[in-house]
Amino acid sequence: MRKGKISHNVILRMPRYLRYLEELLAQDVVRISSGELGQIMDVTPSQIRQDLSCFGEFGQQGYGYKVDMLVAEISAILGVNRERLAIVVGAGNLGRALIGKFPFELYGVRLSAAFDLSPDIVGTEIGGVPVRHIDELEAEIRKTPPDIAVLTMSSESANAIAKRLIDAGVRGIWNFTNVDLTVTGAEVIIENLHFSDSLLTLSYYMTHGKNKGKSSTDNE
Amino acid sequence: MRKGKISHNVILRMPRYLRYLEELLAQDVVRISSGELGQIMDVTPSQIRQDLSCFGEFGQQGYGYKVDMLVAEISAILGVNRERLAIVVGAGNLGRALIGKFPFELYGVRLSAAFDLSPDIVGTEIGGVPVRHIDELEAEIRKTPPDIAVLTMSSESANAIAKRLIDAGVRGIWNFTNVDLTVTGAEVIIENLHFSDSLLTLSYYMTHGKNKGKSSTDNE
Repeated sequence: MRKGKISHNVILRMPRYLRYLEELLAQDVVRISSGELGQIMDVTPSQIRQDLSCFGEFGQQGYGYKVDMLVAEISAILGVNRERLAIVVGAGNLGRALIGKFPFELYGVRLSAAFDLSPDIVGTEIGGVPVRHIDELEAEIRKTPPDIAVLTMSSESANAIAKRLIDAGVRGIWNFTNVDLTVTGAEVIIENLHFSDSLLTLSYYMTHGKNKGKSSTDNE
Repeated sequence: MRKGKISHNVILRMPRYLRYLEELLAQDVVRISSGELGQIMDVTPSQIRQDLSCFGEFGQQGYGYKVDMLVAEISAILGVNRERLAIVVGAGNLGRALIGKFPFELYGVRLSAAFDLSPDIVGTEIGGVPVRHIDELEAEIRKTPPDIAVLTMSSESANAIAKRLIDAGVRGIWNFTNVDLTVTGAEVIIENLHFSDSLLTLSYYMTHGKNKGKSSTDNE
């Protein structure tokens, strides 16, 4: 289904397509043209056709896209159907917010455990997810190997923890620690969610202005 | 200082330059070549020269960049020196994590108040920031007009709250609610931090593989 090397910016737009298409599906919309979808999403129809064509032929001239099929295809492209297991390292406010509120299951991810240092919370559960002591990290990973580790602890220990996780076999890291990880060598995928970079992007556009209607990943 | 229209991807890379340069400054590094900086940041020297040249002439052939000057210049480009006031709407776990842990002041932002519904926390303080009732939003904004509103409440009320904020004169929104805001018409800058899009990007690259050393914003 995947055709050659796909630009990172196209990939960054796919989750947004999925969000809008799932909403249409929930509204029982059966099919939609690239023109209608473009209007809802505030992008050009040609961008939609071009983006989707990177992954295959989903639409039909004069008919548009079948919403349920497109949701299934994009979900598969994004790996939502893989049923991945994840752990959360750091059960402070941010970790708790993610565990309690973020709908991991919608994205094919199931949380098996959280890890922390604090004696107040080790041994408790957050939304059904047990909180273990960080010393048990390797033992727990051996018992129930996670695909993804969500890093929500302090930035000071980010690299040391990342190294332990990768040594233990974790191959996906969702990094909220606000520092770039320096771990190398392994075939690990790191996705950074640096709040500071996002705030500075807001600050830049508040300082210099922004074209109306441009979202973060509109341009190639 | 700013030359013409600068690509969004260049802007997305500037906060990362600032992070690395500030670390060098903290280590008392006085000057650095694009080659050395590129090695630390895992990007090509030509990309660094090209990115920075969008904003002016900062380096000197054979000498490199003065770290303190470059930090000052990039800080100014990103508007860090503007001393912006911000409020946080939603003082649940995510809001509390941001208020308590995120170093807003490093980015020229000062929190004046948080807003919530819950009688348990309205009237309290989080890290010195008073929590007001959401009903007082407009009155508080009139008293102390914020530049930025940080949206950390539930997605259901995101659009209604955004409308109230914009009507009250807020011109920057840092949106953590995981939904695109549909507010239009005003000269407002919205920066979305959609956790779901980030997790799906991780999921995509875990499914399809990724070139080593590529970070989110490496490609034009």
